[in-house]
Amino acid sequence: MDDLQTLRQQLGDRLVTEPGRVAQHAHDSSRAEPAGTPLALVEASSTADVAAALAWAHAHAVPVSVRGAGTGLAGGANAYDGGLIVSLAGMNQILSIDQNERVAVVQPGVITAELDAAARLEGLFYPPDPASARSCTIGGNIATNAGGLRCVAHGVTRDAVAALEVVLADGRVLRTGSRTRKNVVGYDLTSLMVGSEGTLGIVTEATVRLKPVPLGTPCSFRASFDDLDSAGRAVTAIVGGAATPEVLELMDAASVEIIESFQPSGLTVPRGAMLVGQTVGVTAAAQAAAIAETCVAHGATETEVSDSDALIEARRLSNPALTARGLKISCDVGVPVARLAEIFHGITEISRTHDRLVSTVAHAGDGNLHSTVDCADDDIAAADAVLDDITRLALALGGTITGEHGVGSVKLHELPWQLDEVSRATQAAIKQALDPRGILTPGRGI
Amino acid sequence: MDDLQTLRQQLGDRLVTEPGRVAQHAHDSSRAEPAGTPLALVEASSTADVAAALAWAHAHAVPVSVRGAGTGLAGGANAYDGGLIVSLAGMNQILSIDQNERVAVVQPGVITAELDAAARLEGLFYPPDPASARSCTIGGNIATNAGGLRCVAHGVTRDAVAALEVVLADGRVLRTGSRTRKNVVGYDLTSLMVGSEGTLGIVTEATVRLKPVPLGTPCSFRASFDDLDSAGRAVTAIVGGAATPEVLELMDAASVEIIESFQPSGLTVPRGAMLVGQTVGVTAAAQAAAIAETCVAHGATETEVSDSDALIEARRLSNPALTARGLKISCDVGVPVARLAEIFHGITEISRTHDRLVSTVAHAGDGNLHSTVDCADDDIAAADAVLDDITRLALALGGTITGEHGVGSVKLHELPWQLDEVSRATQAAIKQALDPRGILTPGRGI
Ligand SMILES: Cc1cc2nc3c(=O)[nH]c(=O)nc-3n(C[C@H](O)[C@H](O)[C@H](O)COP(=O)(O)OP(=O)(O)OC[C@H]3O[C@@H](n4cnc5c(N)ncnc54)[C@H](O)[C@@H]3O)c2cc1C
Ligand SMILES: Cc1cc2nc3c(=O)[nH]c(=O)nc-3n(C[C@H](O)[C@H](O)[C@H](O)COP(=O)(O)OP(=O)(O)OC[C@H]3O[C@@H](n4cnc5c(N)ncnc54)[C@H](O)[C@@H]3O)c2cc1C
Repeated sequence: MDDLQTLRQQLGDRLVTEPGRVAQHAHDSSRAEPAGTPLALVEASSTADVAAALAWAHAHAVPVSVRGAGTGLAGGANAYDGGLIVSLAGMNQILSIDQNERVAVVQPGVITAELDAAARLEGLFYPPDPASARSCTIGGNIATNAGGLRCVAHGVTRDAVAALEVVLADGRVLRTGSRTRKNVVGYDLTSLMVGSEGTLGIVTEATVRLKPVPLGTPCSFRASFDDLDSAGRAVTAIVGGAATPEVLELMDAASVEIIESFQPSGLTVPRGAMLVGQTVGVTAAAQAAAIAETCVAHGATETEVSDSDALIEARRLSNPALTARGLKISCDVGVPVARLAEIFHGITEISRTHDRLVSTVAHAGDGNLHSTVDCADDDIAAADAVLDDITRLALALGGTITGEHGVGSVKLHELPWQLDEVSRATQAAIKQALDPRGILTPGRGI
Repeated sequence: MDDLQTLRQQLGDRLVTEPGRVAQHAHDSSRAEPAGTPLALVEASSTADVAAALAWAHAHAVPVSVRGAGTGLAGGANAYDGGLIVSLAGMNQILSIDQNERVAVVQPGVITAELDAAARLEGLFYPPDPASARSCTIGGNIATNAGGLRCVAHGVTRDAVAALEVVLADGRVLRTGSRTRKNVVGYDLTSLMVGSEGTLGIVTEATVRLKPVPLGTPCSFRASFDDLDSAGRAVTAIVGGAATPEVLELMDAASVEIIESFQPSGLTVPRGAMLVGQTVGVTAAAQAAAIAETCVAHGATETEVSDSDALIEARRLSNPALTARGLKISCDVGVPVARLAEIFHGITEISRTHDRLVSTVAHAGDGNLHSTVDCADDDIAAADAVLDDITRLALALGGTITGEHGVGSVKLHELPWQLDEVSRATQAAIKQALDPRGILTPGRGI
């Protein structure tokens, strides 16, 4: 496209057209999702770069994909044919950490774990911690409203975002939110942008809330169960109890087996499922002990309390272990925490009906499950049918088709299962209002 | 209007045109704000009633004001000339309280304190508690994203809302949100509706999150300071400390004096300001003692810890006491909690410069202040200038023009002080997308 020249004048060598480098940014971590062949990649170094790229794309009606670290699992960052990729990876500065106000101002390309580490130097921490924290970006987290292991105690990414700078589809720069704890001026555009999966604007700066690191030594716990339902009931009881875990994760037997054969950590594979978690604060040990007792009361056959975090590290290996096995498809459903036993029971039934191995890990304290179905390359449709059954079951239990990974292109066909016509029309009206030419991550997310 | 007949056929005697009854619903609790003379009042008894009313208003381009209990302080529920009032007060059923999932499903006219009381019968409570909790409605709270005394510990109304049923401007019924703790399907329309002040839709049902009543006996504390700045610094330190108060309120000397002369409770009027608050949970007493110590370390001249809640009750009298004095104008600014001492210092200066009595109460733990200026009827403009100075100071400190009461018509002129043109244009685009004929609470809120 000839017109790319005008953009090159503004961006110089931050506009990349060399096909090899462009292609490296064309695909996120979703597996089977197709990606197009884009025109060019913008390696943005400033808000002005992003504004220039979008103003240009808007003028020429060129589709834009937005990319943080590309760890997304919904196809959201995949490139479009003839499109532009805007990468925020280079905008990776932590601009300030204010210990008194407990906020950090960051560029979108900051790696989540790096913000957390920087905050800890000030006695603070950044609460949301997706399992991908060591590679994903804050901008990607905001765009997907990422969850993570500590969300059961501290909430999701939305709860940590105070204010945003966003470049709108036509290149104008929008500022949302406030540093104050309370603010009711106008519509909550911050929450609207969080979770909008790159379809309403590109986040170029974020003010996020930090929390003080709890006093005392964290304590880990683990409990094994002979069946999944009991583990589900134990989670419901723990979440309803007086002790508040900071982490409360579940791995079913198949998952523990897969993780142990990937990188053995000495875990005994349970017959049904294993809960692992962490407590913090000065009463961490007492709380972990109380949680272990709750597990025993709900049928745990073995429990362990320890001040090492090896137990949780095993949980973080789940995705790499599944990937090493050639994982193809998995889901990301959510149910109310009180319905966990029911969905686990149902998943066991579904696995039996389809006669197929299903392995499940869960951010159990949040009622958020990831089930993976074993399948070969020529077998994906049949495996998909298993996931569809699990997804429909989650919805029947008052749940959601996606708890944290987002809709992207991967779950677009499931959207009408959860959202009725009025809801989809309302989403579309907002999209149309903010991006009338439909250039930003078109055809995904809503 | 002849066409009112078609609406009467649908609504029967729920369509009220008797001028006296209509007029009773024409004004909220804002003092100097004008209200129009409407055509009629709809006393809605169901979602279908609301849908019929809006479909009719949409077809006839008739402006609609929406009313819960009319305790709003921003003019948001005031009637329009030739408009329709839709009152939700009659839709006041608590539809269900689910102890396991810890959610309640309520109609919008439920009185906030009544939901809280019903939840407590199940060992749960409804966290947000505006000082008006005994008269305001959940629908009004949602529309204004109401704050309250306990918000320092539990967050604002938005944090308590899981899902909504909303009638859109044209009468279609929208369902938003999910009962699950995590849900990233589509845009966050729930958060968009919360705080939208009746301009985007009418809330006809809400699913709200409840919390378990903390174990142990709550404990109250009180601390007196010789100057406001020190009290502000103490609040910053408390919020940054290990003890977490459930309530942390401030009354300056003038406010305590006004409250004591309205209904004496034996409080000694401090020279500068008084902090009052509450701790909960099994360590409530120890936490209250720790907070009292922090106060002493920041210059408190007198502290008291007690298991009676009389201290907090005095704070709740502030608005009635000011009203009895003929209160005319007050503000609702917010600042980051770390900037409290600075704004208190500034308010003292402003009061001196204008040579006018300013009394201030604050949801201090949230950095949310209400300052009232003494003035006579012919004197409002001069008093307004005092509030304007306070508001501009709050903004200069990184704050907001409204922490909880909303913009309504009262603060519309201040909007451009905080929101730039792109922000206002974006709000307007969303309003246009959802209410193209501009019938819902037009000309207010954004
Ligand atoms: C091993 C592994 C573990 C994971 N664990 C979790 C987990 O625990 N919880 C969880 O929620 N997710 C998890 N994920 C998914 C993924 O890490 C998250 O979705 C993450 O938020 C994506 O961040 P990213 O920077 O990689 O974004 P990308 O993949 O680059 O993009 C993701 C989406 O955000 C948009 N986007 C990115 N940056 C911006 C921006 N600045 N402005 C606007 N839009 C933008 C993109 O267009 C795309 O739609 C995991 C992924 C992997 C591979
Ligand atoms: C003594 C006193 C103390 C107060 N203390 C506090 C406090 O601590 N914190 C605080 O935040 N506020 C406080 N307020 C303000 C007021 O109580 C709140 O704004 C409250 O949320 C209003 O509820 P309401 O039912 O009275 O709503 P109304 O006054 O009837 O309406 C308020 C706004 O909400 C809209 N609305 C009402 N119902 C609906 C609905 N179902 N759907 C859509 N829109 C609707 C209206 O159009 C209007 O814009 C106080 C007021 C008084 C008089």
